[in-house]
Amino acid sequence: MKKKLVLDTSIFVNPASAAAFGSSPTAALAAFLEQAKQADVELLMPPSIYAELMCFAEEAKISKALLLLIHRKPPKKHETRIPGVFIYSLVESMRDRVDRGLRLAERHVRESLQAPAAQSAAGDKPVRADAEAISRLRESYRRIMREGMLDSRADVDLLLLAYEVDGLLVSADQGVLSWAENLGISILSYDHLRDFLVEQNSNR
Amino acid sequence: MKKKLVLDTSIFVNPASAAAFGSSPTAALAAFLEQAKQADVELLMPPSIYAELMCFAEEAKISKALLLLIHRKPPKKHETRIPGVFIYSLVESMRDRVDRGLRLAERHVRESLQAPAAQSAAGDKPVRADAEAISRLRESYRRIMREGMLDSRADVDLLLLAYEVDGLLVSADQGVLSWAENLGISILSYDHLRDFLVEQNSNR
Repeated sequence: MKKKLVLDTSIFVNPASAAAFGSSPTAALAAFLEQAKQADVELLMPPSIYAELMCFAEEAKISKALLLLIHRKPPKKHETRIPGVFIYSLVESMRDRVDRGLRLAERHVRESLQAPAAQSAAGDKPVRADAEAISRLRESYRRIMREGMLDSRADVDLLLLAYEVDGLLVSADQGVLSWAENLGISILSYDHLRDFLVEQNSNR
Repeated sequence: MKKKLVLDTSIFVNPASAAAFGSSPTAALAAFLEQAKQADVELLMPPSIYAELMCFAEEAKISKALLLLIHRKPPKKHETRIPGVFIYSLVESMRDRVDRGLRLAERHVRESLQAPAAQSAAGDKPVRADAEAISRLRESYRRIMREGMLDSRADVDLLLLAYEVDGLLVSADQGVLSWAENLGISILSYDHLRDFLVEQNSNR
C-alpha cells in the first residue's frame, strides 16, 4: 500500500526545511513535488493548510500537473474520534500557558511601575515609552503562548487528518510534531523527507 | 433502565444550588443523598470530583450508607473516544482567552506607566502600590481565563464520564454545562434536580 504523507506548511516555509528542496517556498514545493512524483507515496493536505501554504508559495508558478499530486482532503472531524486522554494534555498545556502568561504580565506591570513617570510636559516622549512597553509585552506574551501550543484550526486539521488516514505527518514545527506524538500519529521529520522519498522510489 | 446522574461538586457548593437541599455543603449533600435513595437513579462521580467535594463537605458527618450511593467511577479515558470536532472548540476558546489575556495585560501595563512614580524615599508606600497593582491584575486575569473555560482535570473527568456512560450531567457551573452541550451530553440543571428525583421516584 502507498505510504500516505500528510504535509504541513512548515516543510516549505521553515528556512532550514525548505533549503533541502529549494531557495524559496515556491522552488522548494516544486522540487519536492517533482521528487515525490517518482516515489510511491500519496500526498495529502487539508485545504486550510494548502491555503496557508499558498500565502507563501506562488501557486501560478508551479505546474498544475504537479499541484494535482496534492490531494486536498479535510479531516472527517465529526466522524473521526480521538482518545479522551488527549483532552487532558490539551487542557494542561493550556493551564500551563495561562499561568506563564500571568507571570509575564506581572513582570511587565512591575517594570512599568518602576519606569520613570510619564512627563506630560515633554511632548511625545511618554507616548513612545508606552508604545515600547506594550510592544515588548506583546512580543514576549505571544512567544510564550504560541510556542508548542496547538492554537490554530489548520493545525487541528492536520492532526485529525493524519490520525484519520493513519498517515505519516511531515512537519518542521516541533509543536505540531509533539502533539502528533500525543495522539499516536507516526511522524516524519523534515530532515528525513528527501531520503524517505528516495527510498520509496527505489523500493518500487 | 436506571437513569445515570453524573454529579458535579458545584451542585453542593454553589450557594444557589446547595440551598435547594441544605444550608451547607454537608447538609446539602446528605439531604440530596437521602432523597436520591428513594429514587430510581444511579449516582456517579469521578474520584477527582469526589475528592474535590470532600474539601467542602465533612465526609465524617454523613452516614457511610448514604455515601455508598455514590459510585466513584473514573472515565475510561484511554478507551473513550470523542468526536474530533470538539478539539476545534477547545482550541478556539483557548485562543480567545489568550487574546483577552493580552488585552488585559496591556491595559494594566498602560495604567502602571501612568501611575505616580515609585518614591523610593517614601518608605514602604511604593511596595504597597506595587502589590495592589499586581493583585488587581491577578484577579482580572484569573476571572477572564477561568470563566467558562475547561481548565481542570476534574472537569474533563466529569465530561468524559458522562459521555462514556451516556448519563445526565448535573452541574451548577455554566462553563461545565456548555462544554457538555458541545459534546452532546444530556444535562440537568441544578434547579431541576429536586423535581427530577421526585419524578423518578413516582415513576417506579
